[in-house]
Amino acid sequence: MNYKMIAYVLGRIFLVEAALLLLPLGTAALYGDGTVRVFLLTITILVLLGLLLGARTPKDTTIFAREGLVVAALAWVLMSLFGALPFRLSGEIPSMVDAFFEVVSGFTTTGSSILTDIEGMSRGLLMWRSFTHWVGGVGVLVFAMAVLPLGDGRGMHLMRAEVPGVTVGKMSSKLRDSARINYAIYFGLTVAEIVLLLIGRMPLYDALINAFGSAGTGGFSHLAASVGAYDNVYYELVIGVFMLLFGVNFNLYYLVLLGRVREALRSEEMRVYFGIVAAAVVAITVNITQMYGSAWQALRHAFFQVSSIITTTGFATQNFDLWPNFSKTILVCIMFFGACTGSTGGGLKIARIVILVKASVRDLQKALHPRAVTSVRFEGKPLESKTLNSVHVYLTLYIILFVGSVLLLSLEHFDLVTTFTAVTACLNNIGPGLAMVGPTGNFANFSAWGKLLLSFDMLAGRLELFPMLVLFAPSVWRRKRHTPAAR
Amino acid sequence: MNYKMIAYVLGRIFLVEAALLLLPLGTAALYGDGTVRVFLLTITILVLLGLLLGARTPKDTTIFAREGLVVAALAWVLMSLFGALPFRLSGEIPSMVDAFFEVVSGFTTTGSSILTDIEGMSRGLLMWRSFTHWVGGVGVLVFAMAVLPLGDGRGMHLMRAEVPGVTVGKMSSKLRDSARINYAIYFGLTVAEIVLLLIGRMPLYDALINAFGSAGTGGFSHLAASVGAYDNVYYELVIGVFMLLFGVNFNLYYLVLLGRVREALRSEEMRVYFGIVAAAVVAITVNITQMYGSAWQALRHAFFQVSSIITTTGFATQNFDLWPNFSKTILVCIMFFGACTGSTGGGLKIARIVILVKASVRDLQKALHPRAVTSVRFEGKPLESKTLNSVHVYLTLYIILFVGSVLLLSLEHFDLVTTFTAVTACLNNIGPGLAMVGPTGNFANFSAWGKLLLSFDMLAGRLELFPMLVLFAPSVWRRKRHTPAAR
Repeated sequence: MNYKMIAYVLGRIFLVEAALLLLPLGTAALYGDGTVRVFLLTITILVLLGLLLGARTPKDTTIFAREGLVVAALAWVLMSLFGALPFRLSGEIPSMVDAFFEVVSGFTTTGSSILTDIEGMSRGLLMWRSFTHWVGGVGVLVFAMAVLPLGDGRGMHLMRAEVPGVTVGKMSSKLRDSARINYAIYFGLTVAEIVLLLIGRMPLYDALINAFGSAGTGGFSHLAASVGAYDNVYYELVIGVFMLLFGVNFNLYYLVLLGRVREALRSEEMRVYFGIVAAAVVAITVNITQMYGSAWQALRHAFFQVSSIITTTGFATQNFDLWPNFSKTILVCIMFFGACTGSTGGGLKIARIVILVKASVRDLQKALHPRAVTSVRFEGKPLESKTLNSVHVYLTLYIILFVGSVLLLSLEHFDLVTTFTAVTACLNNIGPGLAMVGPTGNFANFSAWGKLLLSFDMLAGRLELFPMLVLFAPSVWRRKRHTPAAR
Repeated sequence: MNYKMIAYVLGRIFLVEAALLLLPLGTAALYGDGTVRVFLLTITILVLLGLLLGARTPKDTTIFAREGLVVAALAWVLMSLFGALPFRLSGEIPSMVDAFFEVVSGFTTTGSSILTDIEGMSRGLLMWRSFTHWVGGVGVLVFAMAVLPLGDGRGMHLMRAEVPGVTVGKMSSKLRDSARINYAIYFGLTVAEIVLLLIGRMPLYDALINAFGSAGTGGFSHLAASVGAYDNVYYELVIGVFMLLFGVNFNLYYLVLLGRVREALRSEEMRVYFGIVAAAVVAITVNITQMYGSAWQALRHAFFQVSSIITTTGFATQNFDLWPNFSKTILVCIMFFGACTGSTGGGLKIARIVILVKASVRDLQKALHPRAVTSVRFEGKPLESKTLNSVHVYLTLYIILFVGSVLLLSLEHFDLVTTFTAVTACLNNIGPGLAMVGPTGNFANFSAWGKLLLSFDMLAGRLELFPMLVLFAPSVWRRKRHTPAAR
């Protein structure tokens, strides 16, 4: 394990985080809310640490899969730890564990909160809280990549851990080049959403918060009633549509920019994604029409909530915990589905769901017709058995982590629905669950270790399990280096 | 599809069921409870139908995988349908859907009940109800096999659907020969349990009911309070131990009979099985000690309940729905685990769990050390990728069926815990769940289609998904025959 290189990369990341803190610092200064001091202090600490670790490039800059996974895990944990400092130092979140939970929830674009009085927080801190969503949506390492003197090939080991979803076949060099363009698209879409919200006369501060929340598919709001506080159909439409757009694979936007619109529209994953959205909206609309008195109102709330949940954002306009069980069960299902590969959304990802279902149907057919030759096709191409295996293993690891977390969290004395959906919401990076952690509730009542467990789940969900899980592998912590098998 | 052969096999099965009904007929005659008439009528119908369909052997007796799966599905559905007649005809269960649910629950060794007044039922019917567990434990087709003029090779296509668990490698001819011996062991163990219960001065009628319930890992009792009604530590110990024994792979007993005890004790699946039992008992004992005032009482109840749930029997001595959430979550987890391959228990089966976990750990290691050559080993042998894939697909189909069932069942207006655990209990062939369907509750309040859905789940769980799921394949219902691909 190349420890020097790991330290060097982490140092660079601290410098990046210091730069990111300038936005909330500016906000705090603008509103004069008294948190300028804590932001300055945090920035100073980060800069000092960053210079200490990241000033000199190590002689050996090799980074292999192992280092990549470990750096990813450590980077996200440490960025969250330092990102929590302003909350703790200002005293607005008195417990460090709570502050850590809140910032992990931010960076992982989860949006679960321990805050019981959101509207009593200072504006600078709320801006930082929502800004972490936007940063986390891209991936924190991506920012660091910009300042790291590494060849493209080495950087991939770092970035791989952050790019969500299943990679079908080998990543072509063209796709790799497009990564930078994808982030430009991310920036562009965010700006577009802000502009549209401003056109609807939303204040700039609110527009930024809501755009950061939807772009990162995070869901933090500065209002206790979330997007519901505006009771504004135009805002709900803009945010609802943009959440869905941020849940689409960014490569498709790139194809559109290249003029290959038809190719983009052929995407199997995108079609299934919008198909599930449409089906869920219709089913819930029918199910809740009686509750809201009109099909139009039911459709409005069903659309926003489905869009918010399947993209794993977690904004709320209604307390869906009060909806009938059928609607709640649909929402819990799409919590697990998640959005598309290569988007900012969490969950299992639609591509994996499609592959899993297709592989199962294939095997059912094989049981009936043992001699028939069949292969699983996805996005028009036959799927390699290696890819199929990795999807299956992902599902298994996911279940193991889920069941283990529910089991441990059940040691806290909350009801089964709270326990189950708290883990669901955190592991899938959604935000609210049901019952105590429903849209009007929060995560404040969990004990310190319960919050740390859920923080772990949020990080594992955002980093697609592997980086956080390999931290438990003894070989990661062994001193031995340069064994051929280790590379 | 060889329809004539399917009809022929089904005819033979009806004759077998008529013979099985002689036990409850005798019981009804002995106690003179007035149900002799309905048993005689049912037997007459079955004999007439059986002679009609099964009298003449078809010219073409070929049975391929497709026919095997369809026969398995139809046999279980039709046996349940005719087995439900005595309940319906006697008027003791007025609804045919309810009677069907109860008998499906019996044959599939689930033990979920719609009865609200068990102790008000006549003795003959209760004996039949529990006897279906014992029959279902072996597999209804096995009885039919005895009277079918088929070579061993052809019979395998029929039996394969019923033998639970994952087959590692090819089934050797020796193992196939041992099948008959396994059923002798089943009979022997049942007799041993009856004798031990009689020694404890349990009445013969009760001993039969409890032995049938534990041998088939079913869980029907003729007492509302189940095994708890006796409040007898000796009975609980005998039944608890025998439930665990019936959850072990029967091939291991065969090995013991052959004197290969050491080989039997080396079984990886069995070791994990008992390891999980021990861990669960200890964890629950610690968790409920305060509730029962003494560690001894806590251990007593924890042991019986863990044994009952992991073997998917479902007998209860305590209302575990009142236990703390941690204990309840453990119980729900082991509901999914189930017992060993080749036992009478349901669930996912320990072998599958072990394989899934090992394959995941292997892939985690591969992420750290991409060049290392690793293989997944189970029971001392490297696992073929075909077997691994089939386990993964099984898990996926299982989840799809589970999620689909929960979604549909949530249309009934019961709480989420009831909905979730009702499906869990039925798909895993356990019996009781939590909340409304907990140990003191029942399934009576579900609507007719909810009961049919759960009946489907019970059958799918018992037949390991494939036979019930292929009924949805269009190719099964197509008229075309003799296409090479179809074989």
